[in-house]
Amino acid sequence: MIENNFVCFNKLNKGTCRRNSTLEWIVDKIRDQRSNGGGELLVLKQPYNEKKGVVLHISASKIKFLEAAEEMEIIKCDKSGQQREFTVSNLEDFLPDGMHVDDLLTTAEKQKIIQHELENIRALPEDKHILGYPNYTLYEGQSIIYLCIIQKLIKTIYPLHDNEELKKFGKKWYLTLFGAQPIEQIRLYFGEAIALYFSFLSFYTTALIIPTVLGFLQLFVSKENVPFFCIFNVVWVTVFLEVWRRRSNELAYKWGTIGMTSLDEPRGNFRGHMGIDAVSGKLRPQYPRWKTNAKMYLLSLPLVVLCMAAAFVFMLLQFYCEDYLRALGTPLAQQLLSVPTTVYAIVVYIINIYYRKLATYLTEWENHRTQSQYDRHRVVKLVLFEFVNNFTSLFYIAFVKQDLDVLKNQLATMLIIQQAINNVTESIIPLVLKVLTLRSIKLNTVDSTKHSEKIVYNDKVLTHIPELSIDDSRIQDAEKEYKLEVYETTFDDYLEIYVQFGYVMLFSSVYPLAALWAIINNILEIRSDAFKLCLVYQRPFSRKVKDIGAWQKAFEVIGALSIITNCGLLCLNPQFRKSYYLEEVEWILMFVALEHFLLGLRYLIHIMIPEKPEWVRIALAKKNHESKQALKHEQMQQNRRILARKFKTVHGKQSALS
Amino acid sequence: MIENNFVCFNKLNKGTCRRNSTLEWIVDKIRDQRSNGGGELLVLKQPYNEKKGVVLHISASKIKFLEAAEEMEIIKCDKSGQQREFTVSNLEDFLPDGMHVDDLLTTAEKQKIIQHELENIRALPEDKHILGYPNYTLYEGQSIIYLCIIQKLIKTIYPLHDNEELKKFGKKWYLTLFGAQPIEQIRLYFGEAIALYFSFLSFYTTALIIPTVLGFLQLFVSKENVPFFCIFNVVWVTVFLEVWRRRSNELAYKWGTIGMTSLDEPRGNFRGHMGIDAVSGKLRPQYPRWKTNAKMYLLSLPLVVLCMAAAFVFMLLQFYCEDYLRALGTPLAQQLLSVPTTVYAIVVYIINIYYRKLATYLTEWENHRTQSQYDRHRVVKLVLFEFVNNFTSLFYIAFVKQDLDVLKNQLATMLIIQQAINNVTESIIPLVLKVLTLRSIKLNTVDSTKHSEKIVYNDKVLTHIPELSIDDSRIQDAEKEYKLEVYETTFDDYLEIYVQFGYVMLFSSVYPLAALWAIINNILEIRSDAFKLCLVYQRPFSRKVKDIGAWQKAFEVIGALSIITNCGLLCLNPQFRKSYYLEEVEWILMFVALEHFLLGLRYLIHIMIPEKPEWVRIALAKKNHESKQALKHEQMQQNRRILARKFKTVHGKQSALS
Repeated sequence: MIENNFVCFNKLNKGTCRRNSTLEWIVDKIRDQRSNGGGELLVLKQPYNEKKGVVLHISASKIKFLEAAEEMEIIKCDKSGQQREFTVSNLEDFLPDGMHVDDLLTTAEKQKIIQHELENIRALPEDKHILGYPNYTLYEGQSIIYLCIIQKLIKTIYPLHDNEELKKFGKKWYLTLFGAQPIEQIRLYFGEAIALYFSFLSFYTTALIIPTVLGFLQLFVSKENVPFFCIFNVVWVTVFLEVWRRRSNELAYKWGTIGMTSLDEPRGNFRGHMGIDAVSGKLRPQYPRWKTNAKMYLLSLPLVVLCMAAAFVFMLLQFYCEDYLRALGTPLAQQLLSVPTTVYAIVVYIINIYYRKLATYLTEWENHRTQSQYDRHRVVKLVLFEFVNNFTSLFYIAFVKQDLDVLKNQLATMLIIQQAINNVTESIIPLVLKVLTLRSIKLNTVDSTKHSEKIVYNDKVLTHIPELSIDDSRIQDAEKEYKLEVYETTFDDYLEIYVQFGYVMLFSSVYPLAALWAIINNILEIRSDAFKLCLVYQRPFSRKVKDIGAWQKAFEVIGALSIITNCGLLCLNPQFRKSYYLEEVEWILMFVALEHFLLGLRYLIHIMIPEKPEWVRIALAKKNHESKQALKHEQMQQNRRILARKFKTVHGKQSALS
Repeated sequence: MIENNFVCFNKLNKGTCRRNSTLEWIVDKIRDQRSNGGGELLVLKQPYNEKKGVVLHISASKIKFLEAAEEMEIIKCDKSGQQREFTVSNLEDFLPDGMHVDDLLTTAEKQKIIQHELENIRALPEDKHILGYPNYTLYEGQSIIYLCIIQKLIKTIYPLHDNEELKKFGKKWYLTLFGAQPIEQIRLYFGEAIALYFSFLSFYTTALIIPTVLGFLQLFVSKENVPFFCIFNVVWVTVFLEVWRRRSNELAYKWGTIGMTSLDEPRGNFRGHMGIDAVSGKLRPQYPRWKTNAKMYLLSLPLVVLCMAAAFVFMLLQFYCEDYLRALGTPLAQQLLSVPTTVYAIVVYIINIYYRKLATYLTEWENHRTQSQYDRHRVVKLVLFEFVNNFTSLFYIAFVKQDLDVLKNQLATMLIIQQAINNVTESIIPLVLKVLTLRSIKLNTVDSTKHSEKIVYNDKVLTHIPELSIDDSRIQDAEKEYKLEVYETTFDDYLEIYVQFGYVMLFSSVYPLAALWAIINNILEIRSDAFKLCLVYQRPFSRKVKDIGAWQKAFEVIGALSIITNCGLLCLNPQFRKSYYLEEVEWILMFVALEHFLLGLRYLIHIMIPEKPEWVRIALAKKNHESKQALKHEQMQQNRRILARKFKTVHGKQSALS
């Protein structure tokens, strides 16, 4: 009767009778008809357990899944191999011979549907606040579940792993080193955002082979030839990013996400008064774009710049303290030489935590319409700050201190040691922790219940909700996975590649072997990320994306900056300079000219490589043409009907043209 | 019976009987059914005149116009004010109360239709060559009329002016100085390409007010503040170009051209074997894109670069000769000092003529699919060359000779005198010439007939073609307009603005008043261009465009270069430098830093201003959504029909679901 459970729902319910009615109200909302503002979902409760509060398992009926798939315009492949929006009336078309209708939607898609329906339980005009909590006010169109999470009425919502599915591709994915990744299966299981991350990572790792080879060659040639490598690197980085964009568009086309725009269905937490959507004509929250822009440019941008400046000042302070201690020259000062760096590292770590909260808060407050917009603007804020943290100290060493040996050492340390540490902390430590916490949580929970207030759980509450039998495996799964860490977004994973990319590209003329270390790291990274997703984290919510968002631009900026830094480094290199007999001014102008030539070259390559492969362009144009024809056809038929009706009225006859 | 004539057609028919049969063959092709490869057009002949050969007036029936408008997907505004593709079956929808069906299509649209139909008279498999000319081979799908023009069998094809229409807006347009241009009427009469040119020109002229004001201010402030003006200029040029792009997208949306892509209907002279078009499913010439790319990058690009290098060398030679003469110092040398410049000007003029032919030939040979692509690639080739001709000598004066006074004089001369000359040659001289040639042609033609061979014009040829009466005004119109100059493309007009823009922006820190002269010139330019289009030239073929094509990028490149040149000029300025006490290296690095800051600022502005205004994006998304819904709906109905048929076959009953 009920689909295997997908989303698990945990409500902390400490206390009074009032809270029981709130619980009932929320559960009713989840189960209610769409027309009453409900989610039309199926709810099962776990047998009540004092320690855990109320745990609900949420799913949907088969028909609901199919209807929602149509409403959400989920793209499926039909029998003829064409990508099309799924419609219930065309169900037959989407079922190849032998496929059962239950297998049509992947578990990721079903999850996405449940998440979508939960998010879209929106307050009706009569819902002024959450029942029983007059302080938690609601306005028309607000997402109720989201407010409950914010206000801690709901502790967490998470989808469950599908261990059978995972078994099919998991080991093949994380237990090899060089094998191809099962991207399609990853997409079906984890969603497009994560699949795209892994595609990008493997594309980037493959592309790194070229600078690695060049880096080796650079070791064997004379210093005068280094500028040629610089040119090669620029060409490589530009071509790599442009070709990736094509590849990403190809994937987006295959995955049916290429048509995503900022005018699509709004995200769950998009706030605004309900109104008719200008595009789809449906009832959706409305919020003027200029308000978002004003918030962004008038408050968020200055705040971000301020934080960046603060981080920059801290970085300078660190070097200043170090120089001061070095200048003192006393033995004590020598001993304390590493203190500024350590303090700085700690300060950055702490600031970073708060900055992330600030960035998330600001982006939420800006109220972007779609998830992609929200992600993009959050990533931009975070990347700007991380850029200052990760790269400015290197710039300082390279161009202010002009100490190329320190720079080289710093780069080597970061690329070799720090990356290794990252890999360990990302996958091995969580695994160990998981084992340990499993025990400690057991101890803790037993302990904590002693102090928790008596939970009044009236058995008459939620009586109409079916209960899972006590030995249902879904209860154990839900509990086990509840204790896993949450995989929020792909941000940290991209950031790691981004920082590495910066190290490799920005100073490649000083440390040409960087690319080699990057490759080695990435080969491990792919597998350790795979491992952590399959085993260490809760199953993440599946997310649709059409490209890597703000990261594309962020990588491009590094590409452009690398031209400037590498030309600057070559210009500063004293060994290199000895080979030429030029005035200082001429020497500098030569590198300014080289740099401008490279920037021009970059622009040319960017123009010359089209964004989308020819076949994708044709396929999209064909689809567009067909739709236009259909619209014309429809309008024609409508007209005929109008004419037919007129004809009827005039002649009072029953002649129809339908 | 026949619409007022639009396209006039001139066939030089000197000679034998064989040529009469060719003439009949071509006329039959024009009149024949589409299914026989014909154009389905109406043809009238002028009474035969020995001096002129055969003159045909071509038009189409009312029904043909409407059918072709549907086939060409012409966008019209329907009663509700929405832009939609015209369909015959929805005719009623496009006719506001009181509008007659004959007024539905503008004269520009009717012309476009006739041109389209003429171009699409394509060779059938059995047409191996033009009848009577075995050397003029045809392959399947080749445009017959186009080959006839190339081979001089047809002397010229041109549309006729509609003097009544022209009267309605012409004087209002070219006889004021500051009045708004009737852009919509210009579009309806001359087509989108020309209307967009005038929109751009007036947008640009208005935008020039800001640098003019800044230029004046710059005269009154101390030298140290010049870099601030530089920043203002960069911001201005970037914002101007971005806002223009938005404006251009707005216009393209209103004009229904925003959806144009390189996969649209191919241009008349697109060559390739006939095949099913991947997008529209119609029979169209097919030519793989990679061949075009290969031709472009392997032959055209090197040739263009070679020509640019040659022009550059000529420029250097000129300066070298000048310097040599100056170094000689003899009185004779002094006298000859202006010879190199003059010789150079003449050489450039001559090379330019040949280069244009080369560029046109190469672009034709590359075989671009659509007119917009063809235009874009032709413009790119021409602009690169013109850039070398117009700007490199100024760069040489500014940065090699470093003679800012000469630079200033040169700029003033070019902006004031040369522009004035251009305006005169463009409109006043042609007008005078027109009056003169009208007389001389009469003399000449009388004269030339004496020497021309006897034209054998068999009266039995073309007997089935109706003849215009000898006193039909259309005959006089056609003859009068035949003698007018041909307005080929908007290239020369854009080039003029482009060169001016370059003068104004690239050296604005040296000659801040440039913008003022540019404004004065442009105000005159708009009116003189209007005048020449209305009175001096043949009516141009109407052309659809969605933007200003390659010019957008060309202007952007000037914008970026202006940062580099202005920073360079400031850095070189000795007066400016005196005010600071800096080492030479520091001084240079300061400007390099300023330049990079400005380039970064430009990139930021570019990212921050969206390409399309919000309302256009929403309108397009809405259209797209509606089409998608219609397609879904259509597929659903199809499915029902299939099911109904199955049902019938199974039960053998007459129950239908339609």
